[in-house]
Amino acid sequence: MEEHIKKPEVSLISKPDNMLRTVYTACRTCYSAFSPEEIYNSDNARDDEKALNLIRKVISSGHYSTIEHIQVSFAISGISRACSHQLVRHRHVSFSQKSQRYVKEKEQFDFVIPPTIEKNSEICEKYKQFMNKISDFYLELTNAGIPAEDARFVLPNATSTSMVVSMNLRELIHIANLRLCTRAQYEIRTLIKMMCDEVIKSEPWLKEYLVPKCEKLGFCDEDKSCGRKQQKDN
Amino acid sequence: MEEHIKKPEVSLISKPDNMLRTVYTACRTCYSAFSPEEIYNSDNARDDEKALNLIRKVISSGHYSTIEHIQVSFAISGISRACSHQLVRHRHVSFSQKSQRYVKEKEQFDFVIPPTIEKNSEICEKYKQFMNKISDFYLELTNAGIPAEDARFVLPNATSTSMVVSMNLRELIHIANLRLCTRAQYEIRTLIKMMCDEVIKSEPWLKEYLVPKCEKLGFCDEDKSCGRKQQKDN
Amino acid sequence: MEEHIKKPEVSLISKPDNMLRTVYTACRTCYSAFSPEEIYNSDNARDDEKALNLIRKVISSGHYSTIEHIQVSFAISGISRACSHQLVRHRHVSFSQKSQRYVKEKEQFDFVIPPTIEKNSEICEKYKQFMNKISDFYLELTNAGIPAEDARFVLPNATSTSMVVSMNLRELIHIANLRLCTRAQYEIRTLIKMMCDEVIKSEPWLKEYLVPKCEKLGFCDEDKSCGRKQQKDN
Amino acid sequence: MEEHIKKPEVSLISKPDNMLRTVYTACRTCYSAFSPEEIYNSDNARDDEKALNLIRKVISSGHYSTIEHIQVSFAISGISRACSHQLVRHRHVSFSQKSQRYVKEKEQFDFVIPPTIEKNSEICEKYKQFMNKISDFYLELTNAGIPAEDARFVLPNATSTSMVVSMNLRELIHIANLRLCTRAQYEIRTLIKMMCDEVIKSEPWLKEYLVPKCEKLGFCDEDKSCGRKQQKDN
Repeated sequence: MEEHIKKPEVSLISKPDNMLRTVYTACRTCYSAFSPEEIYNSDNARDDEKALNLIRKVISSGHYSTIEHIQVSFAISGISRACSHQLVRHRHVSFSQKSQRYVKEKEQFDFVIPPTIEKNSEICEKYKQFMNKISDFYLELTNAGIPAEDARFVLPNATSTSMVVSMNLRELIHIANLRLCTRAQYEIRTLIKMMCDEVIKSEPWLKEYLVPKCEKLGFCDEDKSCGRKQQKDN
Repeated sequence: MEEHIKKPEVSLISKPDNMLRTVYTACRTCYSAFSPEEIYNSDNARDDEKALNLIRKVISSGHYSTIEHIQVSFAISGISRACSHQLVRHRHVSFSQKSQRYVKEKEQFDFVIPPTIEKNSEICEKYKQFMNKISDFYLELTNAGIPAEDARFVLPNATSTSMVVSMNLRELIHIANLRLCTRAQYEIRTLIKMMCDEVIKSEPWLKEYLVPKCEKLGFCDEDKSCGRKQQKDN
Repeated sequence: MEEHIKKPEVSLISKPDNMLRTVYTACRTCYSAFSPEEIYNSDNARDDEKALNLIRKVISSGHYSTIEHIQVSFAISGISRACSHQLVRHRHVSFSQKSQRYVKEKEQFDFVIPPTIEKNSEICEKYKQFMNKISDFYLELTNAGIPAEDARFVLPNATSTSMVVSMNLRELIHIANLRLCTRAQYEIRTLIKMMCDEVIKSEPWLKEYLVPKCEKLGFCDEDKSCGRKQQKDN
Repeated sequence: MEEHIKKPEVSLISKPDNMLRTVYTACRTCYSAFSPEEIYNSDNARDDEKALNLIRKVISSGHYSTIEHIQVSFAISGISRACSHQLVRHRHVSFSQKSQRYVKEKEQFDFVIPPTIEKNSEICEKYKQFMNKISDFYLELTNAGIPAEDARFVLPNATSTSMVVSMNLRELIHIANLRLCTRAQYEIRTLIKMMCDEVIKSEPWLKEYLVPKCEKLGFCDEDKSCGRKQQKDN
C-alpha cells in the first residue's frame, strides 16, 4: 500500500538557454533605434547584470509583456485530481495530462493523502483502507468488461495524476501571486511553491516576483487576511 | 437514493438580442466605406435573410473572427466531475463551477451513472450501493472535523457538478467540431449536443455549423474512423 | 476637406438583456447546493439590488471570472490607425476592422488630427494640406495600377479607421484600468473613456470599476505619477 | 536615401535545447503509467528518431496541444507598420515592438517598398521622394515642438518597424497554415516564410507542418483558388 501513497514531485524540464538576453532584447527593442538583431548581439545583451537592471525596471512598471517571451516546462507527478482540476483552470498554460480514459489501472491506484487526514492516524488508516476498497471495486468493474473510461467514475479526487505543464514567466508570476496566498488550497499552494523553487534554483533573479499577491499589492484583497499584510481599508 | 442520480440538464440563459445584426455589421465593416454605426442602422442589417447570406459566405471562407462578437451562456447541471475536468480544458471559455471546497455535502451526494453501467442491472445496483458507502465515509470525515476541502478527496469522478459556462460562437463551433465526434467520451458528447440543440432552438441558422469536424473537413482525421466519413488517405 | 476630419464615435451595439441576473447566477453557483437553473429562476436572481450586493462582494475579492460571462460589443469609428494598432494589442478582445487592402479610397481619405496639432492653427493648416498631398499621391498610385493593398503604404497613421470591438466585462475593466491612466496616449484614453461612458449609461453599477488602475491599487505604479495617487514607495 | 530602404530580416533568437525530448515526454505522459520524470529520463526520450515517430503520430491525429510546450522567439526588422498591424492580430503570440511614441526619428525614417512599386522605376522614384517629403514634414513638426507621439500621425504604413515575437509551435503552424496561403498579403507571407525557414534550419522535422492550410486540408477553402489545390466542391 505505502508505495501507492504519493507526494508531489516537480522538475523543470525545459527552458531557453539565454533567458536574460532574450528578455533584454525585447525590453530594449521597444525604446531603441537599433534593430533587435543588433541589440541581441550587443555587449550589453550578454552582460547579465546590465540586462537584469533593465528587466527589473520594466517589470516594476508593470510591463509584463516583455517576459512572455520566456516559457518554462515542468514535469509534475503525485498530485491529486482535485489539484489538477484547479490547475487546468489557468487558461494561459499548456497541459499534457495522464488520461484516465486510456490508462487502465491494473492494481491499487496511486493516491494522495491530505495533511489534515494524515496527521490523524485513526482516520488515516481508514482512509487508506477505503482507497483499497475503491480500487477493488474499480477492478471488479473493469474485470466485468466496463471500459476504463467508465470504471474511472468510481475513482476519487484523491487519485494521483501526472502532467507536463508549460507557461510563460508572466503567467508563472500571476499564478504564484494567486496560489501562494494562504487562502489557496494547501495542495496547489505546495505545488506552485515547488514549481517556483525549481525555477528560482536556476534563475534566482525571479525570486522577488514569485510571491503572494499581497506582497505585490502592498495590501491583502481577500475577505479575510492571514495577517501577512493588512487589508486595504486599514 | 434515486433522487441523487443525475442526468445532464442544459439551458441557454443569456445571449444578445440582435445576434445576426451584430455579426452582419462586423462582416460588412471589414469591406465597406460606411462606418459600423451606419451599417448597423441600415435596412440591410435589420433584414435577417440578407444578413444571413453574408454571414454564411464569410464563415464558409473560414473568417470565423466575425462570429466571436456573439457570446452565449449556459446553465449546466447533472454532469460528472470527470466531464467538467474535460470541459474546463477548453481555454477560450468562461466557467463558474460549484465548489467542492466551499459547498459541504450534508447527505448522499448527487452522482452520475455511465450508460455501460446503467444497462447492467447487477453492476448498477452495486455501483449505487458503493456511492452510498463513499457518502457514508465522506460524512464520517466531515463529522470528525476534517474540512470539506479535504474530505472531498474521497468523492468520486461520478459526483455531479454544476456550472455556468459562456463562450463565443467561434469557440462553440470549435468545441462542437471536436466533441460531437464519436471518439469523444459519451458524456461530454451528450452535453455538447444538448448545448448545441439549445442554441439551435433559438438560432436555427447555426445548425449547419454545429457538427463533428469530419463534416467540416470532408474526411476523418482520427486514428480510427466511425465510418461517418472516410479517412484522408482513402 | 472638413468633412474628412474625423473625431471618435462609439456606440454600444450589443449586450445581453439580463446582465445582472446572469452574473448573479454565476456567482451563486460556486457556493450553492442549488443548480444554476434553480438559481437563475429564483426571486433573488431577478432582484437587481440583491444581485448587485453579491456581485460587488465577489468583484471586490478579485473574483473577476464571474463577470466574464457578459460580453459587450461596440461600433467604433473616427480613430486613427495609430490608435487601432494599440487597441488590437489587447488579446482578449474580438475585432472586425475596415480593411485597407480591400477598401480602396476614391477621394481624400478620412483622417484624425491630434489635439497638439489642432490647437496650433498654422501647423494645423499645413497638416491638412499635407493629408491632401498624401491623398493625391495615393490616387496617383492607384490610377497607375498599383493595387490598393500596396498604395496604402503611403497612407499615414492619421488615416481614420472603423471597427466592431467586443470584449467581456473583465477585459473591459482591465483595459479601463490601463488606458484611463494619464500615461496612456490621449487618443486611446479618449476612446476607452467613451466606451466606458456608453456602458455606464445602460449599466451604471459598472461605474466604480471603470477607473484608472491607481484607483484600484490605491497607489501609482508608473515611473512618473500624474499626482492623482502617490507612488508606492511614498 | 538607399540605406533607409529596408527588407525584412528574421533571426531565431531563442528556443529550448531539448525540443523533441520535451514534446515526447508530453505525448507519452497522456497514455502512460510512468511519471513524466521517468519518461523524460528514459532512453526513448533521448532517441530523436523514436521521439519523432511518436510526435508525428500525435500531430497527425490533430492533438496539437502537445507541441504547445515549445516556444520559439524571433528578432524581426525591416517590415512595414502595415505588416506589423496584421501580425499583432494573432492573439496567441507575444510581441515587443519598437514604439513610435518613445523613439523619435532624427533623420529620414526607414521604410519598405512594396514589389509592385519597386518594379516600376518611375513610380518607385516618386515613392522614395515622397517618403522624403513625409520625413521633412515629420521633422518640421517635431522641431515645432509637437511631441513624437503626435508627429508620428504623418508617418506612413510604409515606415519600417522591428519587434521581438514569440509563439509556441502550435501557433506557428497555425499562422503558417493561414499566411503561407497565396491569398495572404505578399509582405506577411514573405515574413512568415522567413520565420518558418529559420525554424526549419534548426528543426528540420517541422518542415512538413509549416505549409499553407490547403496542404493540411487537402482542398482550398478560399473564395478563389490559386490552383495549388482544388476547391472543396470540386
